[in-house]
Amino acid sequence: MAEQKATNVHWHEGDITREHRAKLLGHKGATLWFTGLSGSGKSTVAVELEGRLSEMGILAYRLDGDNVRMGINKNLGFSAEDRTENIRRIGEVAKLFVDAGVIALSSFISPYAADRDQVRDLHEAAGMDFIEIFVDCSLEAAEARDPKGLYKKARAGEIKNFTGIDDPYEAPAKPELHLHSDQQSLDEEVDAILALLRERGIIAA
Amino acid sequence: MAEQKATNVHWHEGDITREHRAKLLGHKGATLWFTGLSGSGKSTVAVELEGRLSEMGILAYRLDGDNVRMGINKNLGFSAEDRTENIRRIGEVAKLFVDAGVIALSSFISPYAADRDQVRDLHEAAGMDFIEIFVDCSLEAAEARDPKGLYKKARAGEIKNFTGIDDPYEAPAKPELHLHSDQQSLDEEVDAILALLRERGIIAA
Repeated sequence: MAEQKATNVHWHEGDITREHRAKLLGHKGATLWFTGLSGSGKSTVAVELEGRLSEMGILAYRLDGDNVRMGINKNLGFSAEDRTENIRRIGEVAKLFVDAGVIALSSFISPYAADRDQVRDLHEAAGMDFIEIFVDCSLEAAEARDPKGLYKKARAGEIKNFTGIDDPYEAPAKPELHLHSDQQSLDEEVDAILALLRERGIIAA
Repeated sequence: MAEQKATNVHWHEGDITREHRAKLLGHKGATLWFTGLSGSGKSTVAVELEGRLSEMGILAYRLDGDNVRMGINKNLGFSAEDRTENIRRIGEVAKLFVDAGVIALSSFISPYAADRDQVRDLHEAAGMDFIEIFVDCSLEAAEARDPKGLYKKARAGEIKNFTGIDDPYEAPAKPELHLHSDQQSLDEEVDAILALLRERGIIAA
């Protein structure tokens, strides 16, 4: 955990609560945390899910490696320390979205179990839903796709500490949902997520 | 500006746009940036506004010094460098909220004009509304209120670099709205903000 440096601070409870916002929006907020190798299809599923939710009148918002890295986390690189801080900040942003009533779809490789668990704890301590979705895919299949040409660069030594090549991916032990993007269709994946959201009471049955 | 360390990143345009979300919610997103001395009444106005917007079915979310300092910015202190990074991160978070369609109400002393202008530029470059609201109040009035007892501590030398005491407050030169919390009622302040939101087409007239 990052050290709490500032003193003289306390949680400012507003008059408007999460319950008020859920009533206003017609659904609860939640963080859906997609994790998996580069090229496993995390963003593809998140984009499709966002579209399906929007058609249903549900407010979702995607946080992904590319847009967050250009904004809030632009001053972080890819060292182990920076990767941990990257995930910590994303977790805190996702939590703010959940508090605002939004379904946050975060898709990051997020290779370290400890970092993901920290974000989970942060949500659960606040009584918020944290749904870890493992977008599973063999390294061979992900590398064959290589949508951004990153595996090629990693194999050539142009990118260091690349997950799956010279940095480990720690698969979730007990994700809320385990998708197999090299075996399931996109529709099957999205349907499985929607079913889980209904089951958990996050969206209407 | 913070240096962009990560390479191999690009803005990921989702299929769902800000326009889709505005249609879903019935209003646009925007950042309302409250700035002023400690004790000037920024949070009081923001809390009241949030309540009024909620009654109107409008999704607003408050970011304030206390809750952000305990989360995303818990590893920042009060040095000049940390204050700048504090405001930078808050600006990026607010921008994500605007993109999601939410009216972000950020209330921070944010004493340095350059930091506020950087957040403004960030929003305007993305075609987003950034509304700077100067919650003006004499130092005497703010210090007389001293809701958190911080002025007392600053005068006693227990808190260093306290805005208005031993650190400057740079008043906005051209805020979108200039409130006088020691002369206006809370209702007058909130009404002025709502009128501006209507005028700018952020909420329905």
